[in-house]
Amino acid sequence: MIGVVGGGQLARMMAPAATALGVRLRVLAEGPDVSATTAAPSTVGDYQDLEALKAFVAEVDVVTFDHEHVPPAHLRALEAAGVNLQPGPEALQYAQDKLLMRQACDRLGLANPAWAAVSSVAELLDFGDRTGWPVVLKTPRGGYDGKGVRVLRSAEAAESCGDWFELGFEALLVEEMVDFSRELSAQVARSPSGATASYPVVESIQTDGVCDVVTAPAPGLDPQTAHAAEEAAVTLAKGLGVTGMLAVELFETPGVGPGFMVNELAMRPHNSGHWSMDGAVTGQFEQHVRAVLDLPLGSTAPLGAYTVMKNYLGGANEDLYAAFPSAMTAFPEAKIHAYGKSVRPGRKIGHVNVTAATPEDLASARAAAEGAAAIISEGPQAGPGTGAQAGSRAADQQEQS
Amino acid sequence: MIGVVGGGQLARMMAPAATALGVRLRVLAEGPDVSATTAAPSTVGDYQDLEALKAFVAEVDVVTFDHEHVPPAHLRALEAAGVNLQPGPEALQYAQDKLLMRQACDRLGLANPAWAAVSSVAELLDFGDRTGWPVVLKTPRGGYDGKGVRVLRSAEAAESCGDWFELGFEALLVEEMVDFSRELSAQVARSPSGATASYPVVESIQTDGVCDVVTAPAPGLDPQTAHAAEEAAVTLAKGLGVTGMLAVELFETPGVGPGFMVNELAMRPHNSGHWSMDGAVTGQFEQHVRAVLDLPLGSTAPLGAYTVMKNYLGGANEDLYAAFPSAMTAFPEAKIHAYGKSVRPGRKIGHVNVTAATPEDLASARAAAEGAAAIISEGPQAGPGTGAQAGSRAADQQEQS
Repeated sequence: MIGVVGGGQLARMMAPAATALGVRLRVLAEGPDVSATTAAPSTVGDYQDLEALKAFVAEVDVVTFDHEHVPPAHLRALEAAGVNLQPGPEALQYAQDKLLMRQACDRLGLANPAWAAVSSVAELLDFGDRTGWPVVLKTPRGGYDGKGVRVLRSAEAAESCGDWFELGFEALLVEEMVDFSRELSAQVARSPSGATASYPVVESIQTDGVCDVVTAPAPGLDPQTAHAAEEAAVTLAKGLGVTGMLAVELFETPGVGPGFMVNELAMRPHNSGHWSMDGAVTGQFEQHVRAVLDLPLGSTAPLGAYTVMKNYLGGANEDLYAAFPSAMTAFPEAKIHAYGKSVRPGRKIGHVNVTAATPEDLASARAAAEGAAAIISEGPQAGPGTGAQAGSRAADQQEQS
Repeated sequence: MIGVVGGGQLARMMAPAATALGVRLRVLAEGPDVSATTAAPSTVGDYQDLEALKAFVAEVDVVTFDHEHVPPAHLRALEAAGVNLQPGPEALQYAQDKLLMRQACDRLGLANPAWAAVSSVAELLDFGDRTGWPVVLKTPRGGYDGKGVRVLRSAEAAESCGDWFELGFEALLVEEMVDFSRELSAQVARSPSGATASYPVVESIQTDGVCDVVTAPAPGLDPQTAHAAEEAAVTLAKGLGVTGMLAVELFETPGVGPGFMVNELAMRPHNSGHWSMDGAVTGQFEQHVRAVLDLPLGSTAPLGAYTVMKNYLGGANEDLYAAFPSAMTAFPEAKIHAYGKSVRPGRKIGHVNVTAATPEDLASARAAAEGAAAIISEGPQAGPGTGAQAGSRAADQQEQS
């Protein structure tokens, strides 16, 4: 029995993968109505409560995670009690704390943006004056989908950040604002036995700080850069002792360093890997399940030339199901995934995958994914071809997703 | 909410398809430990008990089936009470009663073997003497996987069949023994609105009367025969008012009639369609869910040149999971599906799909599917390449699977 801490859509999508392998899975859910509870047996409990965690893990053989928010002290306590945590606290700390992550990348020789740990506005100003403005200020812990991140365009903006230094962190992370051409993501699975399996490096387009469109593999990516990015993800997985899926979000920086810099890490299935559910022999959720069980990893070979993943967020349409007939009629090739979540503006509530058999089919695959997502999010009147325009490369992209 | 009557592996595999679409599904299970109960919320109840059926259907919006064994009178009672049954009793009777099925095929102009309804040994002998021996005697209802079927090689054998005429059926079905080259299966989905979506016609190899290896599409099938077989399935779906998945099992008879004869019908996802879970854009379980909900049907386009499905049955190995490491290491491309059933000799407990990207990969795909299945069924010592030899075309193939 696998236990998953957290009941979001990632836990939800692990459930069918476990079922296919005849493996049982149980979720520690934040409430009775969160996404995973309609897909797997669930226990409602607070992951910030050590006693709730202890009661939950007693029911299962291996514990994995829907998110990185379990307090490190609790993870250490469970590990000390002999609980089989995949990934364990030693690895997870690098996904929980961005300062530790930057230090680790430096130690492993991976390309980082210029960065510093700063404990005051004065240190922040000093960093900005040295590297040039704008800079990006991040809380080391607790940020996701654009939260805990602030772009500072000038010394004046930095001077207004005093309150960020009173949030209780010993230091904040400040990074140069990277001049990147696009965002990439490299995913790799690693098992406790040490086996790794890499997925093709993908292009990830963020909109308003949230993952929006992923194309796998990244079109036009320099093969040497792709290879180096895959190697960097393997280096991180091995160097940090990651088990399960690891996503390494990257900035593409043509001509600078290896052609990329590390942005963020996630030690779980990741939005940038949802394409693999329909576009690879082994999807990331099955791969994560295999890895945390220390089973041999599956083939990551793609099933088509490209697969496009388009997220749909809560929008004008409050009844997703009512929009399915329009979306499915217009795009019979669309693989629609709904997370069973209530609709709230901007909330990730599902995604659509479309696989392009040949390179020439990429544009139509993307149009289909975007068209289906638009209909589901905005209602049938959105119609084909009115998908949200992707490609907005706002400054606030430099954040977790 | 979809309600599925019956908790076997077909209900089990409908659950992830429903979850992906954000649709809830509940199972009426024969017991607390049957296959589907670890994959979906379940109510334990007897599908032969009208009150149990009534209580179950009150909880759901649409009712579909894991098998065809619900008593027709119960189905009529539920229909009369306004329950949304997909497929309904009018259609289901043709999958429940082989005599009705043969009559319907004749009425729709589809190629049948020579057949007759016989009520006595004397009538049986008369049929055999007219068409020639051997003949195949079948109970009209209640048979599956070789049960309720008897091959009679001579008049002497027929004379020993007196007890079959005392089983309570008004008449039995007797058919000529078809001289077929191989078995095929044509699958089509039909929605209540009347839309249909055909899958490629597949080759189905039976061993000891049980589906063993399926190759999709059927290698070397004459295109005209393939087209006619797809059309026959659509004709049956429309003519009988089928909703959901329909499988039409066929005998290939090159040069005779349209090149095939109808063998059996199943109105549900079918073993001969399991390949589509990993080998087509829309797998048969998602398609069945879409159809019974009257959603538009998905693309049935294949994801590779061929997909091979190999069943694994209960064998020498009693701990399937313990064999996964060997099977997965040897065949990382294998998609392993386990039904969560206890191991009993000859019981269908799972299957393996492998997709061949190009026609040249078919042999290796088949070797991988057979190799992985052999390891899981017989234990790691089975090793690659020792898969059960398929292709035994025993006379007892002429039966339901």
